[in-house]
Amino acid sequence: MDYLSEKARRLEQYVAGMQPRETGWIKLNTNENPYPPSPEVARSLKNADLARLRLYPDYDSVGLREAVAWNFGVEEENVFCGNGSDEVLALAYQAFFSGKGNILTPDVSYGFYPVWSRMYDVGEKITPLRDDFTIGADDYKRGNGVVIANPNAPTGIALGVPEIEKIARNNPEGVVVADEAYMDFADRADVESAVSLTAKYENLLVVRTFSKSHSLAGMRVGFAIGSRTLIDGLRRVKNAFNSYPLDFLAQTAATAAILDRDYWNETRRQVIATRGKTAARLRELGYRTLDSQANFLFMEAKATKSAKELYEYLFNNKILVRYWDKPRISGFLRVSIGTDSEMEAFIKCVEKQTRPR
Amino acid sequence: MDYLSEKARRLEQYVAGMQPRETGWIKLNTNENPYPPSPEVARSLKNADLARLRLYPDYDSVGLREAVAWNFGVEEENVFCGNGSDEVLALAYQAFFSGKGNILTPDVSYGFYPVWSRMYDVGEKITPLRDDFTIGADDYKRGNGVVIANPNAPTGIALGVPEIEKIARNNPEGVVVADEAYMDFADRADVESAVSLTAKYENLLVVRTFSKSHSLAGMRVGFAIGSRTLIDGLRRVKNAFNSYPLDFLAQTAATAAILDRDYWNETRRQVIATRGKTAARLRELGYRTLDSQANFLFMEAKATKSAKELYEYLFNNKILVRYWDKPRISGFLRVSIGTDSEMEAFIKCVEKQTRPR
Repeated sequence: MDYLSEKARRLEQYVAGMQPRETGWIKLNTNENPYPPSPEVARSLKNADLARLRLYPDYDSVGLREAVAWNFGVEEENVFCGNGSDEVLALAYQAFFSGKGNILTPDVSYGFYPVWSRMYDVGEKITPLRDDFTIGADDYKRGNGVVIANPNAPTGIALGVPEIEKIARNNPEGVVVADEAYMDFADRADVESAVSLTAKYENLLVVRTFSKSHSLAGMRVGFAIGSRTLIDGLRRVKNAFNSYPLDFLAQTAATAAILDRDYWNETRRQVIATRGKTAARLRELGYRTLDSQANFLFMEAKATKSAKELYEYLFNNKILVRYWDKPRISGFLRVSIGTDSEMEAFIKCVEKQTRPR
Repeated sequence: MDYLSEKARRLEQYVAGMQPRETGWIKLNTNENPYPPSPEVARSLKNADLARLRLYPDYDSVGLREAVAWNFGVEEENVFCGNGSDEVLALAYQAFFSGKGNILTPDVSYGFYPVWSRMYDVGEKITPLRDDFTIGADDYKRGNGVVIANPNAPTGIALGVPEIEKIARNNPEGVVVADEAYMDFADRADVESAVSLTAKYENLLVVRTFSKSHSLAGMRVGFAIGSRTLIDGLRRVKNAFNSYPLDFLAQTAATAAILDRDYWNETRRQVIATRGKTAARLRELGYRTLDSQANFLFMEAKATKSAKELYEYLFNNKILVRYWDKPRISGFLRVSIGTDSEMEAFIKCVEKQTRPR
């Protein structure tokens, strides 16, 4: 018997990177941070009153929203928190795009966007990346909404603040979602968070995560910053779905993580430094990488037989990276930035498969 | 500017019971457990490897599902875990009911059901409780689905296993959801979990939570038990929404809680005992309570001016209970079972407002 709803039957499903259960893998496939979370996270969890777990958590995540607001220099009412940025994005699709068409989004970007579009009856208007894999800000106009990742995934390429502003201005009728999961790894002068624009553009929603630059992928905490209008929209949908999406310890850990700015800064700088070294080594071996502002590199496998074969060779050597057999990107591998020694092991392995020039 | 989707605009929102931020309240309004979680929960969290938080959690909650399967004597493949039973139920609405009509559900039950129906385009067929507030099993026939809470909320009244079986048999075309959030507080001989029926009825989905009998409302963990067909349906929808709904520490804490059966049994028996004493005291004062198999009492406020006034009097004395100004139940208050001393304070307060007989 098929009990599925029509909707469930026609769903696509998002396929996340493999999470091996055994140890011994070098895991460069899901853009996790190679460094553990701030010691303040452990301290906050150790001091948490666990008897409190019998009670429902704060459904509005007030303490965490205060900490996020402080960090970004916005008001608490401009912050919404959810169970990972995936949940925040899924709620944004429902709140602002459900049933609408002409939602502009790149052809090459985060693989969950088309899944949510299908799930929530959203008509995507695919707006291809330029030939150099950049998002052309001028291509995003008069949409009923825009969804872009900045920096983009899996390319790692970022738009500058003026280009995000252009997109917000050119799509006044729709919500512009800037998914900044990787923004904290940017080091180009013109690339920074669009949070500063949210006071001016009521339609701009910046989505962020604790999974990457705060080393808390295991805690599932994401947030959005935007106008009161947009935050209220997210809250409406959340309260028709799940009142308490963030548990007490997730709120506790994330609050401690965002307040420890020194640790955050130190570890993200380390990732940026390792990215630079890794890109240089790959270049020496004859591999082009796109200009990454994220904690991963998108490398063209031209100096090897094929991206797929390099993926498999790495896999057989217990190094996990990401490969997609998809138009435009099937010649590339996405490689998360690990520790220096993990990247050394990765480079050595790549070297063995590289054709001598 | 109104950026909301048509869908978001017409949503109802669920209103959860108040969570006061100050201390000093006696909180009998959200059916939390008055006892802290098992000491094994604290131990498991203390021993958890927090460096592991940099990695995504197990998206399939394998360890937790094994523990749940062991506890209920089912297979791992028959268990689905989510971010509170609210999320599990919301996913079930999407997987099995979205776009369908004739989904049978009581007029008086958990307030989230009609909210999800609206959110996911589900046509509810309201099937009123009998005059004595019981669910009439014979009234639930030939639906495209059934959603009942057993024990029901806010009445606390439970159906026996044979009646649940009748409903599963009489609705072969649809999924029958038995929301057993409160089942562990049942003590009537014929009332027990319908999990034992799930092997026989492919269409029966039992939904459970760690929030009540495991004292983990603060951790947001729920689960469903059912046929492989139904579990696969839930997984499909989950993977089109949020890959990793349960964080690492939530999985850790819930696993520890369910494995400590002695503590679970001791605390739930204590709640049952306190419920009995409280109901007896209310009866002495002239208040009828319905036959509760849950961790709350539904009391008729006849011996007072009105339920609303009694609610307000309690509120002014910093005792929170739940009152709904709704048809059929506006003469009642729902009172969660706290500790013996909390219930003493509650009874004393009620006594002051009671008309002498």
